[in-house]
Amino acid sequence: MLDVITIGDALVAMTPTSSGRLRFVHSFEKKVGGAELNVAIGCARLGLKAGWISRLGNDEFGHYILQCVRGEGIDTTHVQLVDGYPTSLYFKEIFDDGRAGSYYYRSNSPTSTMRPEQIDEAYVEQAKIVHISGVFPAVAKTNREVLLRLVQLAKQKGKLVTFDPNIRLKLWSAEEARETLLALMPYIDVVLAGEEEADLLVGTTEPAEIFARFAQLGIRHVVIKRGERGAVGNRDGEVLDHPAIPASVVVDSVGAGDGFAVGYLYSLLQGWDLQKSLHLANLIGSIVVGVRGDNEGLPYLDEIEVYLGQKQRIER
Amino acid sequence: MLDVITIGDALVAMTPTSSGRLRFVHSFEKKVGGAELNVAIGCARLGLKAGWISRLGNDEFGHYILQCVRGEGIDTTHVQLVDGYPTSLYFKEIFDDGRAGSYYYRSNSPTSTMRPEQIDEAYVEQAKIVHISGVFPAVAKTNREVLLRLVQLAKQKGKLVTFDPNIRLKLWSAEEARETLLALMPYIDVVLAGEEEADLLVGTTEPAEIFARFAQLGIRHVVIKRGERGAVGNRDGEVLDHPAIPASVVVDSVGAGDGFAVGYLYSLLQGWDLQKSLHLANLIGSIVVGVRGDNEGLPYLDEIEVYLGQKQRIER
Amino acid sequence: MLDVITIGDALVAMTPTSSGRLRFVHSFEKKVGGAELNVAIGCARLGLKAGWISRLGNDEFGHYILQCVRGEGIDTTHVQLVDGYPTSLYFKEIFDDGRAGSYYYRSNSPTSTMRPEQIDEAYVEQAKIVHISGVFPAVAKTNREVLLRLVQLAKQKGKLVTFDPNIRLKLWSAEEARETLLALMPYIDVVLAGEEEADLLVGTTEPAEIFARFAQLGIRHVVIKRGERGAVGNRDGEVLDHPAIPASVVVDSVGAGDGFAVGYLYSLLQGWDLQKSLHLANLIGSIVVGVRGDNEGLPYLDEIEVYLGQKQRIER
Amino acid sequence: MLDVITIGDALVAMTPTSSGRLRFVHSFEKKVGGAELNVAIGCARLGLKAGWISRLGNDEFGHYILQCVRGEGIDTTHVQLVDGYPTSLYFKEIFDDGRAGSYYYRSNSPTSTMRPEQIDEAYVEQAKIVHISGVFPAVAKTNREVLLRLVQLAKQKGKLVTFDPNIRLKLWSAEEARETLLALMPYIDVVLAGEEEADLLVGTTEPAEIFARFAQLGIRHVVIKRGERGAVGNRDGEVLDHPAIPASVVVDSVGAGDGFAVGYLYSLLQGWDLQKSLHLANLIGSIVVGVRGDNEGLPYLDEIEVYLGQKQRIER
Amino acid sequence: MLDVITIGDALVAMTPTSSGRLRFVHSFEKKVGGAELNVAIGCARLGLKAGWISRLGNDEFGHYILQCVRGEGIDTTHVQLVDGYPTSLYFKEIFDDGRAGSYYYRSNSPTSTMRPEQIDEAYVEQAKIVHISGVFPAVAKTNREVLLRLVQLAKQKGKLVTFDPNIRLKLWSAEEARETLLALMPYIDVVLAGEEEADLLVGTTEPAEIFARFAQLGIRHVVIKRGERGAVGNRDGEVLDHPAIPASVVVDSVGAGDGFAVGYLYSLLQGWDLQKSLHLANLIGSIVVGVRGDNEGLPYLDEIEVYLGQKQRIER
Amino acid sequence: MLDVITIGDALVAMTPTSSGRLRFVHSFEKKVGGAELNVAIGCARLGLKAGWISRLGNDEFGHYILQCVRGEGIDTTHVQLVDGYPTSLYFKEIFDDGRAGSYYYRSNSPTSTMRPEQIDEAYVEQAKIVHISGVFPAVAKTNREVLLRLVQLAKQKGKLVTFDPNIRLKLWSAEEARETLLALMPYIDVVLAGEEEADLLVGTTEPAEIFARFAQLGIRHVVIKRGERGAVGNRDGEVLDHPAIPASVVVDSVGAGDGFAVGYLYSLLQGWDLQKSLHLANLIGSIVVGVRGDNEGLPYLDEIEVYLGQKQRIER
Repeated sequence: MLDVITIGDALVAMTPTSSGRLRFVHSFEKKVGGAELNVAIGCARLGLKAGWISRLGNDEFGHYILQCVRGEGIDTTHVQLVDGYPTSLYFKEIFDDGRAGSYYYRSNSPTSTMRPEQIDEAYVEQAKIVHISGVFPAVAKTNREVLLRLVQLAKQKGKLVTFDPNIRLKLWSAEEARETLLALMPYIDVVLAGEEEADLLVGTTEPAEIFARFAQLGIRHVVIKRGERGAVGNRDGEVLDHPAIPASVVVDSVGAGDGFAVGYLYSLLQGWDLQKSLHLANLIGSIVVGVRGDNEGLPYLDEIEVYLGQKQRIER
Repeated sequence: MLDVITIGDALVAMTPTSSGRLRFVHSFEKKVGGAELNVAIGCARLGLKAGWISRLGNDEFGHYILQCVRGEGIDTTHVQLVDGYPTSLYFKEIFDDGRAGSYYYRSNSPTSTMRPEQIDEAYVEQAKIVHISGVFPAVAKTNREVLLRLVQLAKQKGKLVTFDPNIRLKLWSAEEARETLLALMPYIDVVLAGEEEADLLVGTTEPAEIFARFAQLGIRHVVIKRGERGAVGNRDGEVLDHPAIPASVVVDSVGAGDGFAVGYLYSLLQGWDLQKSLHLANLIGSIVVGVRGDNEGLPYLDEIEVYLGQKQRIER
Repeated sequence: MLDVITIGDALVAMTPTSSGRLRFVHSFEKKVGGAELNVAIGCARLGLKAGWISRLGNDEFGHYILQCVRGEGIDTTHVQLVDGYPTSLYFKEIFDDGRAGSYYYRSNSPTSTMRPEQIDEAYVEQAKIVHISGVFPAVAKTNREVLLRLVQLAKQKGKLVTFDPNIRLKLWSAEEARETLLALMPYIDVVLAGEEEADLLVGTTEPAEIFARFAQLGIRHVVIKRGERGAVGNRDGEVLDHPAIPASVVVDSVGAGDGFAVGYLYSLLQGWDLQKSLHLANLIGSIVVGVRGDNEGLPYLDEIEVYLGQKQRIER
Repeated sequence: MLDVITIGDALVAMTPTSSGRLRFVHSFEKKVGGAELNVAIGCARLGLKAGWISRLGNDEFGHYILQCVRGEGIDTTHVQLVDGYPTSLYFKEIFDDGRAGSYYYRSNSPTSTMRPEQIDEAYVEQAKIVHISGVFPAVAKTNREVLLRLVQLAKQKGKLVTFDPNIRLKLWSAEEARETLLALMPYIDVVLAGEEEADLLVGTTEPAEIFARFAQLGIRHVVIKRGERGAVGNRDGEVLDHPAIPASVVVDSVGAGDGFAVGYLYSLLQGWDLQKSLHLANLIGSIVVGVRGDNEGLPYLDEIEVYLGQKQRIER
Repeated sequence: MLDVITIGDALVAMTPTSSGRLRFVHSFEKKVGGAELNVAIGCARLGLKAGWISRLGNDEFGHYILQCVRGEGIDTTHVQLVDGYPTSLYFKEIFDDGRAGSYYYRSNSPTSTMRPEQIDEAYVEQAKIVHISGVFPAVAKTNREVLLRLVQLAKQKGKLVTFDPNIRLKLWSAEEARETLLALMPYIDVVLAGEEEADLLVGTTEPAEIFARFAQLGIRHVVIKRGERGAVGNRDGEVLDHPAIPASVVVDSVGAGDGFAVGYLYSLLQGWDLQKSLHLANLIGSIVVGVRGDNEGLPYLDEIEVYLGQKQRIER
Repeated sequence: MLDVITIGDALVAMTPTSSGRLRFVHSFEKKVGGAELNVAIGCARLGLKAGWISRLGNDEFGHYILQCVRGEGIDTTHVQLVDGYPTSLYFKEIFDDGRAGSYYYRSNSPTSTMRPEQIDEAYVEQAKIVHISGVFPAVAKTNREVLLRLVQLAKQKGKLVTFDPNIRLKLWSAEEARETLLALMPYIDVVLAGEEEADLLVGTTEPAEIFARFAQLGIRHVVIKRGERGAVGNRDGEVLDHPAIPASVVVDSVGAGDGFAVGYLYSLLQGWDLQKSLHLANLIGSIVVGVRGDNEGLPYLDEIEVYLGQKQRIER
C-alpha cells in the first residue's frame, strides 16, 4: 500500500559553485531535481509511503538518480533504465540579486519511451493519492497519452487525483499547455495552482471566479497559490484565505511549489481541515526557499512537528 | 588570407574533478572540446591563421565557447549564435587505469541549423587549406550536405582539402559513416586516417593495399596512423614509415589525432618533405597525450621549435 | 528472501582531497565505509538481495549512511538510528608512495547499543548466507555476544555462515581477536582469511597446515588469500591454488578483501566450482584496488560479465 | 612572565564548505576551535603574552593544532601530545537563516589524561590572570579535579582568576554544571556570564539580584552578557549598563563570548575602568561574529586601535 | 575603424575563494582586472569596437590575459608580450561586511617598457574616442610621457579624449597624482571624476565650483560622480543632476567607476543627450556592483536594452 | 642556545590545484617556501633548535608566513615585518611528465631592507651552526653585504659555517653568482654543492679536482651532490662515495637539496661519521621528493628513526 504515487522526468541538476553568468562559472556540482520527484521526496521525508513512476537513461546519471531516489526511501519498482536516451539534465544559473536561470538538456527524455499501456493497473490500485503535474506532459508529446491513461485509471479505481499545473513556458507554449492540461480535468479531484497558472487555464486571477470555472469543469477542491499574499482554498464550498508564512531567509526559490504540494498532500492524508492544510502547505513552501537545492530543503517529519509545536526543538 | 579553414560542432567538455564512475563524481569543470575546433586551435598556436565555421547556441555556453575560440586568435567571422538550439555538451569520465567514457548531449546541435547555400564562397576563397573530419557529418544528418558543399567549393577553387575520418560509432553506424564519407572522396586531396578507420572505409589494414584503394578513389596523398607503431605515409608514390615518438607520460588520450593533423597541416604549409611532416605530426600527437584536456596540450610554436632543436629550451 | 545478510558498524570515511600527512591537508570529502557494509554493497551490485543489520547514530551522518545504503538497494529494515551515540567516523590519510593511514572515531559505536536478544530470528530465517567479519566484534565488547547469537541462530537454521577474520590490530589486541574469533568457529562454515590472519588464528602460514587446523575446528571449507601470490582454497578436500589477477593500476587498497568476499559469496550462490569461485574472488579484489574509495570500485554485474567474457564490453 | 594562562580542550573544527543539513554537505575544511583556546588566541593577537595548558592526541590533528597555537605566538610549554586518545573533533553545520549545529567527537578527550598533581606551580606563578571556562570540566569528569587544583593554586598565589561559565548542555546536564561550577566559586575573582548561565548558576536573570547572589558567594566583580541588550557590570559596587555594539554583519556567532572575554581581560590588564572595559568587550564580541570561523575574527591590536580611535584606519 | 581606444596595465586578479583576512584564506582563483581594460571590455560587450594598447609579460599570465582580452572581442594588435617583466598581479581580500583589500605586485609593470615614440599614430587615427585613466601613469613613471604622447596625438588628430582620474593613493602620492594629471588637462575633452578626485585635482567638492575650475583649464564637459547621491554633469554649460540608481544587491564594488565610464562613452557615441547619458552611466555602475569580479558584471547590449525598456526581458 | 641559525627570504608558494600550463590553471593554494627557511623547518622537525633571520612584508602574507614558521617551532625573534615591501611570492607550475616552472614576484624582497650592521652579534653567539645559501644574496644586491657580515661574525665567534650554493640563474647571472659566492669562501667551513654548482664555482665536475680547488680556498670539508649517482664527501681528507637512496616515488623535486642539507647538519650536530652523515642526507633528500610541497615532505625525528632502524614503524 502506498500513500502517494507520482509520475515524472527527473534531471541531474548541475549547480554552479559560484554566482553570476554561467559563461564565467568554472565548476558545477551534481544534484538531483524534477518537480514530481521533489513531491515524492517531500512525502517520503514526512513518513509517507511514496512511489515514483519514471524512466531514466541507462547511464551513469540514471544510476545516480536511481540511487538518490531509493536512498530517500521511495518505491522505485516502476522506474526503468533505458538504453539510448541520455538522462535529462539542466544547468542552474544563480545571481546574487535573486534572479536565476535554467538551461535544459532534456529534449530526448528517457520518459518519452513510456507507452500508455505500460502503466501498471495493480500499482495504481495500491495508491491512496495519484499526484501529477504539468511538467511531465511538457517534456515529451508522447507523455501526454501516458499521463491521461494514468489519471483515467486512478479515477476509475477511486483514487484521489491531485494536480499542480507547474506550467513551464520554456518547455511548451501556453496554447499547448492549456489544451493538454484541460483535457486532464475530468479526472482531477484537487487542483493546486499558482495565480498565473489559473489565469492561463481558466482565464482569470480572481479567486471566486477561478473556483467557479473549475467547478464548471467538475472540480470543487481548488487551492490558489498567491505568493506573498498566501493561498486561498475552496474545499467543497468552504473558502479560506490563509496568509503567507514569511521565510526567515530566501536563498533558492526552486521547489517552493513542490513543497506546498507536499504539505497539502500530507494534510489530506491526515484528514486535516482546510485551515490546517493550507498552514502546513504554506509552511513547507517557506521552509524550502531557505535552503539551496531543488529538494534539499524539503523538511523531515520531526522538523515539521517542531514547527507545528507538537515537539520541542531538537538541539543540533 | 587564412592558412586553414575548418568546420565543426564544438562542445562544452564537462570534466570530472575526480576519477571513477561518474555516478560517484561530485563536481565537474567546464572546458571546451570538438575535433575540428581542436585542429583550428592547434594551427593557431603554431602561428597559422585559422578560421572556424560553426554555429553555437545563443546561450551562456555558446558565448563561453566563442570567447575561448576568439581568445585563441581564431577567426570567428563565420561563427553564429542561434536561438533554440542548446550548445552541445559532453561529460568526460576518467578512470585511473586509463579507460575513459563520454556522455554526449549534442542531439540538437546548433550546427544542424546550417544550410549548404549558406557556405560563403568568399570565405573559402581566402583559405589555403580546408580541413574536415567525420565528426561534423555524424552530428546531424543535415550537416552532410553542408560539408559536401564546402568541399566542392574548395575543390573548385583549387584549395587543398585535407580529411581526418574521425569515425565515432557512438554518433552514427559504420554503414552511415562509410557511405557518407566515401561520397566526399572525390573532393579530398589528403587523407589522415587511423588503421581501423581505413579498414572501415576501404576494407583493409594493410598499408600498400590502403594506398592502392585510395588511389582508385583518386587520392594519392594518404597517411595511416598506427598508434604505437607510428605512421606510414604515401605522398604521390613516395612511401615512408615513421616510428612513433613515445610520450613521456600519457594522461589523456583525447585529442591525439587532432594534434597529428595539426602537425601535418603545418608541415604542408611549410612545404616540408614527408619525413619531416610525419615527424612533426607524430611529435604533436605524443605531446598532446601528456596533458589533461581536449586541447590544452596542443603546443605553441616556441615549444615545437625547442623539440625540433631550432631553439633552446625556455626556462620556465 | 535474501541472499546474504551481514552485520557491522558503518563509518563516514572522511577522505582527504590531497595526499600527504593530514596535518597539511586542508579539505576532506564525506564518503561511506565499513567492512561488512562493503560486502553487502558488493553483493547488491551483482544483483544479489542483501540485507544489513546495524545501528547508526540518529544524527546527520547516520541519516547520510542510511541513504547511501538504501540507495545501493540493500534491505535496511534491520538498521536503527539511535540517540546519544555519534555515527562512527574515520579519516583516511593517503601517501603518494602507496602508504595510507586511518584515524578512527568509533569508540562509542552506535552498534554497541545492540543486544543479543534483539537479533530477529525471522530475519535470519530469510537469508541463504550469513556473512560476518572480525571488525564488528572488535568495535565494541558487547558486539561479541551479539555476533555469537547471530551465528548460533544461523547455524541452527541451517544457513551457510561465511567468515572473513578482517583482524584490525588498531581496534583490539591479537589475544582478544584470537580468543573472540575462535569462539565463533563452531558456527562457521566457510573461512576466507589472509595468510597472516590464519597465522594469528591457527598458528601457521602453510596452506596444508592451515587447512588441517581448521578441519580440527570442524571447518572444511577454507580459502587463504596470499596477496600477489593469489589464493589457495580447500573445499571439502579439493585443494586449488589460483594465481593472483594483477590489477591494471593500484590506487586504493582499502576494500580489496571485501571485494574478494563478494566474489566468493556470489560464486557460492551460483553453485560455481572452486576454480571459478577463486577466479571471480581474485578478479573483484583486483578491480577494487584500481578505484579510489572503500566501495566505489566494487563492480556491477554487467562489468563482471564483460570481464568473464559473458558479455561484450560496453562502450562508455 | 605571562599575562594570561588558560586551560582547555581544543578541537579540530570540521567546517562545511556549503550551508544546509550535513547529510547533504559534500566537503569540509579543517580549522581549529575550543573556547579557552580562543581566549588565548584573542589575547595573543592583542599583544598579550598568553599560555595554554592542554593535552592533544599524538596524532596528525594534535600536531596540526599545536602548530596553529604556536603559530599564534601562544606559549605551549604546557601542552603535551598523548598516545591513545584521539584529538577532539567537531563538525559544524551552518544554515542560511543563521541557525547552526555542532556534532562532537570528544568523548575521549586527551585532556582526560591530566591529573591535578601535574599542574605546574611554577607555571601558575608566572601568570597575572588565570582564565577558565565551564567547557573544560564538562569534557571529562577527571578534568574537574584538575581545574579545581588550578584555581586553588592561582588563588593561593594571589593571581586574578576570571571565569566564563560557557555552559554547553550537550556536554553535561544542568545539575552537573551547577554543582561543578559552584564548587569553583570560592577561587574565582571575576565572573563573565551570560544571562541564562547566571540563571542556571544563581537562579535569577535580574542583574541586581545576580550581583547580590554572587556577592554572597564572595564574588564582587561580575559582568552579565545580555546579547542585543548589551552587558551590565558590577565591579566592587560600581554598576554600569553598557549598550551592545551592533555588528555590521553577522555570519558566524560561534566565539562571540570568547571575544567578549578577550576584551575584558585585556582591559583588566590595562587597568581600564568599567566603562572602557565593557566597551572593548562588547566591541570584540561584535567584531567576531562578522567573520567565519571560531577564532579567525578575533582582532589584532592595530585593528582595535583603529576602532578605539587611537589609530588611523590602515588601508588594506 | 575603432570606436574607443584605451591604454593601461592589466593584472591577474587573484580572488579568494572565501572571505576574511587573507592570512586565513587557503585558495585563490585567477581572474583578470585593470581599470582601463575594464572599460574596453565594457565597451566591447555593448557592441562597440574597442582597442587596447598595452604590454604584458611574456609569461603564462601574460598569455592568459591576452586570451581573455581577445576573447572579449577587443582589438589587441597593439598589445605586446615582453620578456623580463612579470605580468602584473594583485590579490583581492573580501570581508563579509563589504570591506575589501588589495595587495599589488605590479612594481615592474611590463607597461614600463613602453616609450612615447612607440605610440602608433595610425592606430590613434582609427579611433573615435581615446579614453585614459590615472592608473596607467601611476603604475610606472615612464608611463607618464607615454600617456602624454597619446593624448597629444589624439588631440592633434581631433579625437575625443575622455578621462577618468581613477586616483589610487596606494600607487602614488596625492602630489604626484595632481601634478601628473593636471599636465594632461590641455588635451582632455571630457572628465568623469569622483567627488574626492575632483577635490584633489581642483580643490573643491562643490559641483558649480568644480565646473568653473575645469572650465578655466579649458574643459567644458565634466561629470562628477557622487556615489549614493548620483552624478552631476555639465556639458557645455548644460548642467544636470541625475539621481543614483540603487543596485538590487551590492557584492563587489570594484569596477563600478569603470562601468560608469562605459555607459557614458557608449552614450557619447550614440549621440545621446546628457540626461540619457547620465542615466546609462549610473545604470551600468549599479549593475556592475551586483556581480563578483572586476569586470564580470559589465553588461551586454541586450541586457542594457532590457533595462532601458527597448527589449523584453530574456528568459534565462 | 640554538643549534642552527639561517638567514633567507621566504615566499608564499602559490601552488596550482591542477597540472599543466598556468594559463589554463584556474585555482591556486597558498603554501610557504624559501630555501633557507626549508632548512630551518627540517632542522626543527628533527628536534633541533633552529633560528631564522629574515624580514617579511607587514601584510597578510607576511603574517601568514610568520605564523607558519612559529608553528614549526622555529625561533623568530630575529624576523621583522616591514612596511612598503610586499612579501615575496612565487607561482609553481607542474607538468605530469615531471617538468616544473616557477614564476617569481620577489624583486622588492622585504629582506632588501636589512643592513649589515643590524645583524645581532648576540644572536650569532647563541648558534652552533650558521647555515647559508646562495639564494639570499641573489634576491637583492644589498643582501650580499648582510650575508658577508653574518659569516664574518660567525667565523670570528668560532661557529661552524655551512654553505649550500643553491645557484638560481633566474635570479642572477653565473658571473654575479661566482663572484659573490667566492667572496664568502674565506668564512665557510663546510660546502654542500651540486655537481654543476661546483663547476660554476671552481670550474670542474671531477670530485678529486673539486676537493683540491676548495682546499686551495681553505675549505677541507666538501660534499658534492650528484643526483642519481649519490654524493661524494671529503671531510678533512677522508673521502667517501655514497650511493643515492632511490625514492619510492617522485612527485615534487623542489626542496630535495634543502632536505640533504638538513640531514647533513643534523649528522654534524650528532657527531656522526661521514658515512652515516651522507646516508642521512641522501635519505632525507629522497623522502622529500615523494611529497608535494616545498617543505611538507621534510621528515620528523620519529620517521627518521624508523628509517634508520632505531624505532619500529608507527602504525598510522
